[in-house]
Amino acid sequence: MINKPSLPKGTRDFLPLQAKRRKHIFKTIEDCFILFGYQPLETPAMENLSTLTGKYGDEGDKLLFKILNSGDYLKDANEELLLKKESTKLIPSISEKGLRYDLTVPFARVVAMYRNDITFPFKRYQIQAVWRADRPQRGRYREFYQCDADVVGSNSLMYEAELIRIYDSVFKSLGIPVKILINHRSILEGIAIQAGCQDQFMAMTIAIDKLDKIGVDGVTKELENIGIIPETSSWILSQLKQSQLDTFKFNDKATLGVQEMNIALDYLKNTRTHNEVVFDATLARGLSYYTGCIFEVVPTTIKMGSLGGCGRYDNLTSIFGLNGVSGVGISFGADRIYDVMQELSLWPTSLEVPVKVLFMALDDQSHRHAFDLAQQCRAAGIPVDVYPDPGKLKKQFKFAEDLKIPFLVILGEDEVKTGRYNLKNQSNGEQTSLTIDAIIARLNS
Amino acid sequence: MINKPSLPKGTRDFLPLQAKRRKHIFKTIEDCFILFGYQPLETPAMENLSTLTGKYGDEGDKLLFKILNSGDYLKDANEELLLKKESTKLIPSISEKGLRYDLTVPFARVVAMYRNDITFPFKRYQIQAVWRADRPQRGRYREFYQCDADVVGSNSLMYEAELIRIYDSVFKSLGIPVKILINHRSILEGIAIQAGCQDQFMAMTIAIDKLDKIGVDGVTKELENIGIIPETSSWILSQLKQSQLDTFKFNDKATLGVQEMNIALDYLKNTRTHNEVVFDATLARGLSYYTGCIFEVVPTTIKMGSLGGCGRYDNLTSIFGLNGVSGVGISFGADRIYDVMQELSLWPTSLEVPVKVLFMALDDQSHRHAFDLAQQCRAAGIPVDVYPDPGKLKKQFKFAEDLKIPFLVILGEDEVKTGRYNLKNQSNGEQTSLTIDAIIARLNS
Repeated sequence: MINKPSLPKGTRDFLPLQAKRRKHIFKTIEDCFILFGYQPLETPAMENLSTLTGKYGDEGDKLLFKILNSGDYLKDANEELLLKKESTKLIPSISEKGLRYDLTVPFARVVAMYRNDITFPFKRYQIQAVWRADRPQRGRYREFYQCDADVVGSNSLMYEAELIRIYDSVFKSLGIPVKILINHRSILEGIAIQAGCQDQFMAMTIAIDKLDKIGVDGVTKELENIGIIPETSSWILSQLKQSQLDTFKFNDKATLGVQEMNIALDYLKNTRTHNEVVFDATLARGLSYYTGCIFEVVPTTIKMGSLGGCGRYDNLTSIFGLNGVSGVGISFGADRIYDVMQELSLWPTSLEVPVKVLFMALDDQSHRHAFDLAQQCRAAGIPVDVYPDPGKLKKQFKFAEDLKIPFLVILGEDEVKTGRYNLKNQSNGEQTSLTIDAIIARLNS
Repeated sequence: MINKPSLPKGTRDFLPLQAKRRKHIFKTIEDCFILFGYQPLETPAMENLSTLTGKYGDEGDKLLFKILNSGDYLKDANEELLLKKESTKLIPSISEKGLRYDLTVPFARVVAMYRNDITFPFKRYQIQAVWRADRPQRGRYREFYQCDADVVGSNSLMYEAELIRIYDSVFKSLGIPVKILINHRSILEGIAIQAGCQDQFMAMTIAIDKLDKIGVDGVTKELENIGIIPETSSWILSQLKQSQLDTFKFNDKATLGVQEMNIALDYLKNTRTHNEVVFDATLARGLSYYTGCIFEVVPTTIKMGSLGGCGRYDNLTSIFGLNGVSGVGISFGADRIYDVMQELSLWPTSLEVPVKVLFMALDDQSHRHAFDLAQQCRAAGIPVDVYPDPGKLKKQFKFAEDLKIPFLVILGEDEVKTGRYNLKNQSNGEQTSLTIDAIIARLNS
């Protein structure tokens, strides 16, 4: 039987050029993590559903991909639920595993499981795929990569400064100009307390988070919906506009936030960052989770959402029975970074080239010779290739052109005899007669 | 609710040291693939079951991990099958996706789907996880990585020689002494024809493949079971012992195999391989699949099974409607390579070290100074770290020891004032007073 091949919706193949560009992003991020002393961790794609369920809210539970138990999975299924076609309730009896939904819960599981083998503070990075049964749409996929680094087991604010340096350094390396926005949960809490609406704190921050999208009027309306009168909203919104950290010392809570941010920023004052670090009181991301400083990175030369976010959390591992482990984590949005690189044409052109040289032969004997020359180039660290069939130059030229190979060497009897080869530069047509050692030296320089 | 965290059986976490050792293997293989002009391909973990089912035999179909459809997955399920608890028959109505079982079928799907965008011969490599619902046992996991490279769209025997070079080069780089065994399907077919048992060819090769494990008597018995009389078996077994390729020219089929192998080996004769390439007529792997040369790599200094195999196939993409695309593929067994590296203590010690230097500070002011020095080292490409809390030297020393950090710099008032720092070599206790530039120069040399 012949299948018409297709892909599950929301998933993607990455063909060579795209795969190399993605690797370029991941490698830039990973190299930076390593420079800062973060260590790799890898966890399996499948986790027990008992590990995943209940960690991402009801909506998240629905978006988990569940794996059917192996073998006769219906054997112990509840017959009544089967008869009633109770899809949701039946899950626990036919599926015990799911695909990981993020890298944070598996990380928390690892810290809890191996707590006695780990040296704290534990700095780990993890770059792996995650899966979500979201409705696919532009820029949203059912399989995508997360790039996270976290340090757990210390509440030192030096790490907040370190994560800012990591953002600064990665986006400098990638060539994307960004602004690093920072804020602190306590400042938002201080505002809520001062406005007398601390009971509506979460709803308030959710509204504030939409300021960019729905504007002052929209936020005022949302705040009114949760019972905050326009006079209060107006005060809150006026506070959010303040760009001076020291404005926010009107109560203990807010003062704590200011102090912590000042300590973190103090680490950065002697060596300037390449990108601007900006205090932004309207930044209100992930507050169901973050308990201290919060960060977000946005590109400055193009209209595109956040390229990453991070923050401090106090209770990551408590869901697995390990309390009092403070941590701070950073995350990069690889897919969006890809889109920005694409829009700004920031890809290194070297990624387009599969090999530096193609050896082309006119006959069997020179083909074998070409194979040996290629081996010498490879031993010297130069990626090269040999066209598989000698003769028919037209075909060989077309192959070199299609693959954008920058240099050609054509071999015939003469070349084999003399040991001198014409290195042809495809970009300008220049040909130079060289020995193989000279070719290697030139390509390595 | 607190979960006691656990992992699904047959899956593994890779903590930093293990993850770095695995990355070392993958990077060595990948770097070699790149030198030979192979390009990366990545496919999604989930494939449509219509892509996967029927490609791995009935047993394989059972070992596919199936993903439950999202939402109300029982809505359209066949009620009669539900009532009868027909687990297998019900699968198509509640699950349309599965986890990939190998990298070969997704590759074939990609070649078929993008045939018009691909330049042939197409050389691709792919290093990704695969999943099989096998019974977990020592050395067998439900999630593991495959490292494959294939070239499709050419029947040039140069590629057979190239794949031998790749094996030779990767195992040289890893430091594992190996033997590369080669054989050809046509030689085994020629033997079967000559023995008059070509109808039992597949069963014959399955028996021959067990020669190592069950010996001559065992194979003779198995051959007898499929109707091959002991006299014939004895001839077959005597042939298999021959180590001279040219012995096998007794009929056209076998002669073809000898010729093809000679052409491939001819490419290797001028530049010696580091590891021995050995013709072995008993090598009979994957013959349900391979149509030409077959290869296998075994370590020579340790008793352990095959570390990889490869071979030529003629019809990879025909299951997806694309015929006449010959290819040859190579594969590395990463888990077994890991075990061999472990047994032979071949890990680079550099993998044990998270950073080169730990900066330790006595007070807040020197802590900020340490943070700046660290930034200078990182900008020069040296991975370093700063202990997060100044003071308490004992704790800092213990941290450095636990993480095996090779150099320490302790900063106090004096160091900040003078700009000279004691670089302490932890392996011999030596201390040298240096500027930060001198420290960077020394660590980079």
